[in-house]
Amino acid sequence: MATKNWKELVAEKKDRQLSQIPKEWILNNLPPKEILNVVDFPEKCGLLSEQEIVITNTSVDQLLANLATGTWTAVEVTTAFAKRAIIAHQLVSCLTEVFIDRALRRAAELDEHLKVTGKVVGPLHGLPISLKDHVPIKGVEMTMGWASWVGQYSDKNAVIIDVLEASGAIPFVRTNLPQAIMWPETFNHVFGRTLNPYNRALTAGGSSGGEGALIALKGSPLGVASDIGASVRIPAAFHGLYGLRPSYGRVPYAGCLNALQGQEAVTFVLGPISNSLEGVKRFMKSVADQKPWTLDAKTIKRPWNEEEYSLADRGRGKPLCFAIMWHDEIVRPHPPITRALQLARDALLAAGHHVIDWKPLKHLEISNTVYTILGAGAKEDFEKVTTSSGEPIITTMDPSVDFNNSDPSAWPSMRLLENSLSAYEFWQAQMRRSVIRQEYWDHWNATASHTATGRPVDAIIAPCAPYVAPPHGKNTNINYTVFCNSHDYTALVLPSGLSVDPILDAKQPPHAFLSKMDKANYDLYDPATFKDAPVGIQLIGRTLGEEAVIAMGEIVDAALKAKTQSPSAHL
Amino acid sequence: MATKNWKELVAEKKDRQLSQIPKEWILNNLPPKEILNVVDFPEKCGLLSEQEIVITNTSVDQLLANLATGTWTAVEVTTAFAKRAIIAHQLVSCLTEVFIDRALRRAAELDEHLKVTGKVVGPLHGLPISLKDHVPIKGVEMTMGWASWVGQYSDKNAVIIDVLEASGAIPFVRTNLPQAIMWPETFNHVFGRTLNPYNRALTAGGSSGGEGALIALKGSPLGVASDIGASVRIPAAFHGLYGLRPSYGRVPYAGCLNALQGQEAVTFVLGPISNSLEGVKRFMKSVADQKPWTLDAKTIKRPWNEEEYSLADRGRGKPLCFAIMWHDEIVRPHPPITRALQLARDALLAAGHHVIDWKPLKHLEISNTVYTILGAGAKEDFEKVTTSSGEPIITTMDPSVDFNNSDPSAWPSMRLLENSLSAYEFWQAQMRRSVIRQEYWDHWNATASHTATGRPVDAIIAPCAPYVAPPHGKNTNINYTVFCNSHDYTALVLPSGLSVDPILDAKQPPHAFLSKMDKANYDLYDPATFKDAPVGIQLIGRTLGEEAVIAMGEIVDAALKAKTQSPSAHL
Repeated sequence: MATKNWKELVAEKKDRQLSQIPKEWILNNLPPKEILNVVDFPEKCGLLSEQEIVITNTSVDQLLANLATGTWTAVEVTTAFAKRAIIAHQLVSCLTEVFIDRALRRAAELDEHLKVTGKVVGPLHGLPISLKDHVPIKGVEMTMGWASWVGQYSDKNAVIIDVLEASGAIPFVRTNLPQAIMWPETFNHVFGRTLNPYNRALTAGGSSGGEGALIALKGSPLGVASDIGASVRIPAAFHGLYGLRPSYGRVPYAGCLNALQGQEAVTFVLGPISNSLEGVKRFMKSVADQKPWTLDAKTIKRPWNEEEYSLADRGRGKPLCFAIMWHDEIVRPHPPITRALQLARDALLAAGHHVIDWKPLKHLEISNTVYTILGAGAKEDFEKVTTSSGEPIITTMDPSVDFNNSDPSAWPSMRLLENSLSAYEFWQAQMRRSVIRQEYWDHWNATASHTATGRPVDAIIAPCAPYVAPPHGKNTNINYTVFCNSHDYTALVLPSGLSVDPILDAKQPPHAFLSKMDKANYDLYDPATFKDAPVGIQLIGRTLGEEAVIAMGEIVDAALKAKTQSPSAHL
Repeated sequence: MATKNWKELVAEKKDRQLSQIPKEWILNNLPPKEILNVVDFPEKCGLLSEQEIVITNTSVDQLLANLATGTWTAVEVTTAFAKRAIIAHQLVSCLTEVFIDRALRRAAELDEHLKVTGKVVGPLHGLPISLKDHVPIKGVEMTMGWASWVGQYSDKNAVIIDVLEASGAIPFVRTNLPQAIMWPETFNHVFGRTLNPYNRALTAGGSSGGEGALIALKGSPLGVASDIGASVRIPAAFHGLYGLRPSYGRVPYAGCLNALQGQEAVTFVLGPISNSLEGVKRFMKSVADQKPWTLDAKTIKRPWNEEEYSLADRGRGKPLCFAIMWHDEIVRPHPPITRALQLARDALLAAGHHVIDWKPLKHLEISNTVYTILGAGAKEDFEKVTTSSGEPIITTMDPSVDFNNSDPSAWPSMRLLENSLSAYEFWQAQMRRSVIRQEYWDHWNATASHTATGRPVDAIIAPCAPYVAPPHGKNTNINYTVFCNSHDYTALVLPSGLSVDPILDAKQPPHAFLSKMDKANYDLYDPATFKDAPVGIQLIGRTLGEEAVIAMGEIVDAALKAKTQSPSAHL
């Protein structure tokens, strides 16, 4: 454990991070802070060759095809993404650990293997992969955003690293997250704040904000993020990406670190973020194909199920019944979100599917119960880490609060730290969660009476949040995502194809507010604030439904693209 | 909740229980208390007809065959088992709720269905089934052994009831358990103490002691028991029966009640006890075939896997590698247990399998961690129930302690009630458990280097306890079973075919004791004390390995039978 003061540790770590970045990739033509949308910058900055631009713009499936045929070498592909990742980092502060040398050594080995044997080592042969900063890699430093952990090097790979490497993937960078991984934005004392490249005045979301920003800038084709309440899905949605929150036990988590260790009710799951749905699918199938349950005691013995992916038990998808959650009875979403839901409805109806409304059930009680569970021992847990270095516990994502200088008593309080419980009280919260989970399951089953398919609703389409990426410090609502963690639902985020439009998404007159939160959310909205922000939506299936949810995601994605890319798009 | 004093409630309940028993089945020729072995009494008492004796001696698979062909009606079969269950109850106090009328109505419906359609309603058509007293049935009173709950009638079936009834099974009685279901013996203030029919001076074990004693007396062909630390397996072993502790999420638990609700780390699982391994298999397969995951949010989507049952990934069982745990490095088992393990070794070697020694890992730490987890909020939990009626919390299974009359301060303390924790402390215990679970997984994987099959050990063969059924109050050691709950291993109990033999199982000279517990266990042994007690053994496979464990159980069972039923048996 650290014995130095946290500020010394942070300074030391920042130096070390800079030393990991090849000097020739450090840019002196960075756009000024006032330039908010920097998505196009990597291709214009002059650092990337034509071919590197082509490579980094290529989707995962095509990358894998070109790597497998030797059209592109793993070294070429890794170099291209590494360069672009470093550009991205200089724009939006998305990286934590950079280990390009390690990656290039492995890439060279893979190239040699392919050359000698004519065979790939696995289904992800040569694919660079980024990882959120709580997935240990042997010999690589890991701070998880805690200043107190600066200088800790992992002595073992997390199981997912072994699994991905056996598949041929090449870890090359790790990405930023909020302190304690417990915020839906991305800021910590060590690595600072990750910005949204579509509009740097807006949050990248969190807790996998580093992944979201990096992949939006095409600095990585595929990222390993994680989700405890929103953390894969909010960054995916806020960057117009694809991201999956799998069920517990589907992707091996053994060996990963996080705050609140030992809290085993609502826990992190690893899940992919990618520029394409194919990237998400390749990740899930490749991981399952390595039989990760033989390595991780808590991973469920469940191979990739091609039959479920074919939707065989859902009439092969002809037709499906989707249910749209227009709002959660707590907060109505902003106009661009509602417009995306309407687009999804129209697109799916046009594709011949049934679409009904989803009736939410006890969402506020679910969220409150999760907060009670996570907060039951959070204070002791956080303090155990921070004591050694004096590092301030971050109690807001609001950038106007200065944790370096201001009076600690003036910092806002943090809901998670307010209510330590006894074990018995904690059990009562866990019981409430389980009871509502079963109620919601019955509620879902009961929809079979009005879907016109004879089956319960196949998937719910919902907002990811009641807004697109909001300004820094304003992402305070995880109600639209956290119920999936509480119920262990499979939840996929996909881009609607829309982004905020000042005319189509004009502010509406006030509605009858559902809650104080609803009023505050209404007041937050002004289309100008959210300029250029992409609009994601969420597709929610049931527990251990990864194959079906991905397959249904393909259907929704195709329907949306047919609408948004047709001549009548946006009408 | 009760407002009456607990003694009034108990008296009221005892009257009601008596009223549920058909008067003509109440015997006046019961053996005196001094007759310890009463296993043969049901067939000699005169109440059962010849055909009822035949029916109740028939194994589950043959019963189902005869029911499906209409050779025997469901009414006949249910009547036969109901009668024999009532006889059993008068011998060993194994029943709680008796609802024979309800069962016979359902049996008549099933008979009519078969007559009219020529078809069975499901794979368990007409099979009477007993259930431990924490599985609610709509309209049936359920006390779970708490005096404070007397008069509570369930308003809903547990999911397993719906699943079993859809399969054609007929619930007809519920069975006794200890107060709070938290003892490996069976005694509570409401229904008293269940005795072991092989030797009524010995315990039936627990917590599913009612099931064990009832099925040993053939008062039920198949019972739904449950296991949180030993509770299916100890009663199965102490009665020479087959019993399975499935992994979490394999058998639907939704709707069941238990103490420590909301403690979700080491929890109850439902599992079958039967006179035959085929009974265990039929239960598991029938349950899976009903897709219970569609009804219970926590049941894992996992159909019965015929390929794993065929041992396809284990060379189709030719040969397997078993590892024998001779002792757990805490307490050496008594001579009959060791003799059974030796028999299993010899039998498996003779059948062409590999047998190596199992090296235990941290078993005492595992047990202590489970106690810490279960005890973290147990005091508050128990007191919440007992306050309303003043019912004494049972702190020992020792029959010499009189909870009715003696001074409460003289009652022994109970380990589970001694250490209430904070939620944070509870998380630390959960974390220790998870860490050791992964260590044990790695430890098991590492055996691949010395199994001669190229695979890790296929299954561990271990004692269920360091003794056969001990005298009442003496069953204090669950170390041999609880590590499977902590690690979520699939664990099958099967009879070795042996029972205690005064000559072959003579007391041995003292060995170098492994612990104080080991010395106490040594001192407990005298073959005369354990007269007629059957010897069970445990076959342990990995998580979600039900199909493979049952298949391997068939191999072990056949090998044991080949040995014990050969002319050289017992040598």
